Amino acid sequence: MTHSYDIRLIAPSGYPHSPDAMQRGIARLEAAGHRVTGKEVLARRDLRFAGTDAQRAADLDAFADPACPLPDIGLAIRGGYGAHPLLPMLDYERIGARLRGAPVALVGHSDFTALQCALYARSGVVTLGGPMLGADFGANELDALTWEHFWHTLASDEVHAEWAAPLTEDMTTSGTLWGGNLAMLAGLAGSPYFPAIEGGLLFVEDVAEPPYRVERMLFHLLHAGVLGAQKALLVGDFTSYRVSEYDNGYDLDVALERIAAVAGIPVVRGLPFGHGPAKLTLPFGAPGRLAVAAGRATLDFTGHPRPKTP
Amino acid sequence: MTHSYDIRLIAPSGYPHSPDAMQRGIARLEAAGHRVTGKEVLARRDLRFAGTDAQRAADLDAFADPACPLPDIGLAIRGGYGAHPLLPMLDYERIGARLRGAPVALVGHSDFTALQCALYARSGVVTLGGPMLGADFGANELDALTWEHFWHTLASDEVHAEWAAPLTEDMTTSGTLWGGNLAMLAGLAGSPYFPAIEGGLLFVEDVAEPPYRVERMLFHLLHAGVLGAQKALLVGDFTSYRVSEYDNGYDLDVALERIAAVAGIPVVRGLPFGHGPAKLTLPFGAPGRLAVAAGRATLDFTGHPRPKTP
Repeated sequence: MTHSYDIRLIAPSGYPHSPDAMQRGIARLEAAGHRVTGKEVLARRDLRFAGTDAQRAADLDAFADPACPLPDIGLAIRGGYGAHPLLPMLDYERIGARLRGAPVALVGHSDFTALQCALYARSGVVTLGGPMLGADFGANELDALTWEHFWHTLASDEVHAEWAAPLTEDMTTSGTLWGGNLAMLAGLAGSPYFPAIEGGLLFVEDVAEPPYRVERMLFHLLHAGVLGAQKALLVGDFTSYRVSEYDNGYDLDVALERIAAVAGIPVVRGLPFGHGPAKLTLPFGAPGRLAVAAGRATLDFTGHPRPKTP
Repeated sequence: MTHSYDIRLIAPSGYPHSPDAMQRGIARLEAAGHRVTGKEVLARRDLRFAGTDAQRAADLDAFADPACPLPDIGLAIRGGYGAHPLLPMLDYERIGARLRGAPVALVGHSDFTALQCALYARSGVVTLGGPMLGADFGANELDALTWEHFWHTLASDEVHAEWAAPLTEDMTTSGTLWGGNLAMLAGLAGSPYFPAIEGGLLFVEDVAEPPYRVERMLFHLLHAGVLGAQKALLVGDFTSYRVSEYDNGYDLDVALERIAAVAGIPVVRGLPFGHGPAKLTLPFGAPGRLAVAAGRATLDFTGHPRPKTP
């Protein structure tokens, strides 16, 4: 680590499942030379939420408030559920005016994807899908790829990533890189919080969703005119689900083959992104270039939010 | 029973979980004097589906084929998953031309709701949310309300229902009665298969969806401009879910209160409709009148599809 960043914690969704993990995450970030603020959000609790809807919305609106100095990084503590009620409450105009193109990286995944959708659709603000305080920085074992690619992304104008992409034909394409949690994306279709991105590179992941539900959500994006309008679908991690005897040979591979057959766009497997430990840090709304050759995918992107380098 | 109906089985979703339940359902219908055709759909199986996508779509398209005599009732054998892939395959124009206003009742619930949405949105065909062959007519114990209200609905121009509606203020309103499975409704928002119904009485139910997911789906309908445009939300059965210690007092009642507070429409509880045994038969797309007084709801509707009475 050469840079030292100001990291402000935000808690738009659930309260900490594991306070220990949160403290471990803070300790790791501080040990790496960063300053962590906003720790008070860790103590907030209202029902299953990290505070009332108003408190959680205020975490985001603080980025629009000229009286609040901007941090380098706004880091979501965890996902869960809680972003959706906030969507009509945010001051998108002021957030956009202050954050569009600003050297501030808002980072998270899972439920956080709903905010990323809304911030891009309504404010034109590019955010990052990536690690969160508890599950990632606070994991019992810190994942090396997650840690390194996060700092690499923040420190680099042009970011590179590659991974094994089985079952994918050779291809090269480019477009707006966007996506995140599939249930969050599908769950905003048809609303003003869903961005109108055409010709994009859409990445998706989810947790505890069996293959038939993944297929159903991808059909939703297809029926809503979203999936077929993209250049490619990048398939991240789908974890913690079970198939049953009733599935009768139907599994995630079959579901993705069925979608590929009707969507008419390349489906690229193996993206390290999701609820598994190893995850790339990826922009929601920045230009990317994707190539697949001999079962290996390479992704390059630029134009993502980056803190100022001192 | 005074009428004897021609009942054609259709299988747009999953294959039979329990073949015994299917046979029990057929036996009960035949013992009541009805004729059951289409039994061959019970033997179809492709992965987790009741036949290939083409076979399942053909079940529906048969209703548009002048060479196929119309039955009185088209009865879904079960739900599961499988309607969504069919939606772009159906011949809505021919289905609408033959079925709009025809004396044919297409009946089902759960995954079947997706077809009901599409048939109403694209063909103007009113269908019925109600019992299915396996889980309802083939239940170990036949539910009296389900059985009686189904035949009552088919036999009556004006249908009446009432139920205990706790936590609901007195009110009277009217509008298009529509709805069904919440995940199916939310999962078509923003697509051409979602009907543009304003001022309606929207009923919802779901199974195995914890309260935070129910809230999230209702927020989806709210964000998509659907929920706030209705006259009332009728809450059916939400079954087979668990709340956890993490929920910290958050439950379905709290979720519904949170939605009621932002949706600005009455939320009426207790509708007997969903994955529980007792269910009313309710139209998707026919005019209804709803009143709540002293914790008791009454619903009257007309204009639903009815077989010819001999």
